Amino acid sequence: MTLTQLKSSSFSKAAEEIIAAGLFLGAKGWAPATSGNYSMRLEDGRIAITVSGRTKGALTAQSIMIVEADGTPCDNRIPSAETLLHVGIYHVYPDCHAVLHTHSLNSTVFTKRYAELDAIVLENYELLKVFPHIKTHEARVSLPIVDNAQDMKALSATITPRLAKDISAYLIRGHGLYAWGRDMTEARAIIEATEFMLGCELELRS
Amino acid sequence: MTLTQLKSSSFSKAAEEIIAAGLFLGAKGWAPATSGNYSMRLEDGRIAITVSGRTKGALTAQSIMIVEADGTPCDNRIPSAETLLHVGIYHVYPDCHAVLHTHSLNSTVFTKRYAELDAIVLENYELLKVFPHIKTHEARVSLPIVDNAQDMKALSATITPRLAKDISAYLIRGHGLYAWGRDMTEARAIIEATEFMLGCELELRS
Amino acid sequence: MTLTQLKSSSFSKAAEEIIAAGLFLGAKGWAPATSGNYSMRLEDGRIAITVSGRTKGALTAQSIMIVEADGTPCDNRIPSAETLLHVGIYHVYPDCHAVLHTHSLNSTVFTKRYAELDAIVLENYELLKVFPHIKTHEARVSLPIVDNAQDMKALSATITPRLAKDISAYLIRGHGLYAWGRDMTEARAIIEATEFMLGCELELRS
Amino acid sequence: MTLTQLKSSSFSKAAEEIIAAGLFLGAKGWAPATSGNYSMRLEDGRIAITVSGRTKGALTAQSIMIVEADGTPCDNRIPSAETLLHVGIYHVYPDCHAVLHTHSLNSTVFTKRYAELDAIVLENYELLKVFPHIKTHEARVSLPIVDNAQDMKALSATITPRLAKDISAYLIRGHGLYAWGRDMTEARAIIEATEFMLGCELELRS
Repeated sequence: MTLTQLKSSSFSKAAEEIIAAGLFLGAKGWAPATSGNYSMRLEDGRIAITVSGRTKGALTAQSIMIVEADGTPCDNRIPSAETLLHVGIYHVYPDCHAVLHTHSLNSTVFTKRYAELDAIVLENYELLKVFPHIKTHEARVSLPIVDNAQDMKALSATITPRLAKDISAYLIRGHGLYAWGRDMTEARAIIEATEFMLGCELELRS
Repeated sequence: MTLTQLKSSSFSKAAEEIIAAGLFLGAKGWAPATSGNYSMRLEDGRIAITVSGRTKGALTAQSIMIVEADGTPCDNRIPSAETLLHVGIYHVYPDCHAVLHTHSLNSTVFTKRYAELDAIVLENYELLKVFPHIKTHEARVSLPIVDNAQDMKALSATITPRLAKDISAYLIRGHGLYAWGRDMTEARAIIEATEFMLGCELELRS
Repeated sequence: MTLTQLKSSSFSKAAEEIIAAGLFLGAKGWAPATSGNYSMRLEDGRIAITVSGRTKGALTAQSIMIVEADGTPCDNRIPSAETLLHVGIYHVYPDCHAVLHTHSLNSTVFTKRYAELDAIVLENYELLKVFPHIKTHEARVSLPIVDNAQDMKALSATITPRLAKDISAYLIRGHGLYAWGRDMTEARAIIEATEFMLGCELELRS
Repeated sequence: MTLTQLKSSSFSKAAEEIIAAGLFLGAKGWAPATSGNYSMRLEDGRIAITVSGRTKGALTAQSIMIVEADGTPCDNRIPSAETLLHVGIYHVYPDCHAVLHTHSLNSTVFTKRYAELDAIVLENYELLKVFPHIKTHEARVSLPIVDNAQDMKALSATITPRLAKDISAYLIRGHGLYAWGRDMTEARAIIEATEFMLGCELELRS
C-alpha cells in the first residue's frame, strides 16, 4: 500500500465515522438547521472536517473535506466556520483524534441563563466516569464557558489558555458544546454524557 | 422539452421537496393531527401547496395540488385553509420560493402565555445567522406575532403590513409559526432554527 | 361475497388500522408498558379490540379479538380490561367507529396535579377545530375528568351521564385519555390534538 | 439435544432478548454513552450479561458474555462493572430471570434533587399494576434509593437488606434505576412503567 493509498484509507474511515456521528447527533436534535461541525485527525496530521453549511444529520463523503493541521483548506471548498477551534484543540491535545460540536437547546439555555458563569461544575454523577482519568462519581469537573465571537482567531485565543490537561469539553455561550476524545467512540461518549449532565443541571438548578 | 413538460417537472420537484419537508416536520412533532401546510412557488408563478386536511408526516404527490398565484385552485380539490397566507408571503417577497407552517407546542404555548406581546425578540443566538443578511450572533431580530383568525383575507391583511424586508418568519397566536426561504433548504433551516430559539425563549423566560 | 367473508374482511381492515394506530401511539410514548387499548366497531355491530396485556407499539392481528356489542368475548381470550368503557362509548355515539385510549405522562400529571378538577377546559386553540362541529379557535371545549376505578361497570356508570353529544374525549385520573371518532383517521387526529392541547395546558398553568 | 447444546440455546435466546432490550432502552435515551447493563439468568443458573463498556443501543451477541451465579467471568472478557448488583438480585429473588439497569435523566435528577430521600413512594397510578401482586391503582409502592458507590460489594451489601419480597426496582443516587422480572417481557414493562412514574413524580413535585 502506498502512502497515498494509506492516507486515502485513513480519510475514508474518518469520513464514515463523521457521517455516523452526524446521524447520531442529528437524531438527538443537537444539530438544528446546519449547525454543528465535526472532525477527525488523519494519520498524516491533516484534519478531515465537515464542509461549511451542510445538514449534519444527512452528511455524505462529499460533505467532508481535508484541511492542513493549521486549518488551511486542501481544496477550494469552505470548511466549517469554526475550523480554527478544531485546530486549536488538536494542537493542545496531541492524543486527540476526534472533535465534535453540538448545538443543543440545553447548552444554549444553560449558557444564556447563567450569563455570569465562566464555567460549569459537574459533581457526583456516575457519568463523570466518561471523562478519561475520572474513576469515581465522587469527582468535581469544571468545564470552561466562553463568550461567543465570530472572529475565530480571537475566540480560539480566549479558549486555548483554559484548555487544561484534564479537560475534554467546553461551552460557547448561546452557541453550544465542544467535546473531544482519543477516537470517535470516546468523543461521542463524552459529548453524549456531557449533554446528559447539562440537561440534569438545568433541571436541578431551576 | 415543451413548456408543459417543464412545468410538470417543476411540480414534481416541488412535490418531492414538500413531501420530504412533511416527513421532517412531522417527525419533529410540529404537525399534530392534520395541522400545518407547506408550499413552493413553481417556475410559472403558480404555487404547489398541500391539499386541505392531509396528515403532513405522510404526504404523497396526491396530497399536493397547484393554485394560481392569487390562490385560485387549479383543480377541484380544496387547498390548505391558509392558502391566502402563502399567497401573501410570495407577493411580498419576490425571491421567496418555499413557505412552511408548523404547529408546535412551543409556538402555541409562547404566543398564548405572552398574550400581550405582538412580537418576539431574539438576541445573541448563534443560530440567528440562519436568517439571510444576519452575519453575527450580536443581532436583534423581532418576529411579528398576530392574533389568530378564521377569515384568511382579514388575517392576511393584518400580517402583510408587518412583513418588513428582513423578516423571514411570523407567529399566529395559539396556532403556530410561518417561515420561508429562497428555496426549500433555506425555509427548512429557518423554521427549524426559529423553533429552536422559541424553545430556548420559553425556557429562558420561565 | 358471503356475510362471513364480509365480516372477516371488515375485521381485517379494522385490525390493520388498530395495528397502525398502535405503532403511532407507541412511538409517541403514549402506551408505556402494556397500557392503552384500542378498538373499532365492525360492520355487524361487534367490536374488534386489543387483547389484554399486549404491547401496543408492537401489535399483530393475533393481538386483536372480537367481542359482542355488550363486551362479551367471542373467543376464549381476555379482551382489554377496559372493554366496557369502549362498549359504553359505542352505545352513546351510534356514529362512532373507533375508540383509542392513551396513557401519556401529560394526561397522568394533569389529572393528578389538578386533583380537584372534574373537567379540563380548552379555549382559543386552532387545534380545537379537530373536534367535529367546532369551526373556529374561538371555542370553549370542556372534557370530563373522572376518578380512576378498577370496577369497570362502576367506572362506566360514572362516565356515561357525562357523555354529552358534542364530547369526543374524556380523561381518567392518573390513568389517561379516551378519544373517539367516526373512523380511525378521525379518532387518531382527535387523540393527537387533545394530547397536544393537554401538553400546552400543563405548560400554561405552571 | 445435549446439555451443552441446551445451554447454548438458552444463551442464544437470552442474548437476543438482551439485544432487543438494548435497542428499546437506547432509543428511549435511557443508556447515554456506555451506561446501563442488562442480564438474564440462564437455565443452568449462570448469568448472561453485557460486556463492560459497550454501547447499549447497539449490542451484538459479541457484547454479551456468561458469568457464574456468583459473578465470576466464564471467559477473559470483563463483564459490566455492576455485575455484583445483578448477582445480588438473582440471589434474593429465585424466580427472577431478567435484570435491567437504565441511566435516565429523570432518575438522575430525582435522586439528586431529593438527596435526603432514601425511598420514592408511588401512589394512585394505574401503571402501578405493572408490579406483580398489585391489582389496583389504590396502592402505595415504596422503592429504595441508595447512595452511589464504586465498591460493588459495599453497594450490594447496602441494597440487599432493603430488597423486600414485593420490591421489583430500586434507584442508585445520581446513577439510575434497576428493575427486574420473571422474564424479560416483565422486566421491560416494569422498568418502562417505573421510568414513566418517575417522570410524573418529577413534574408533580416541582
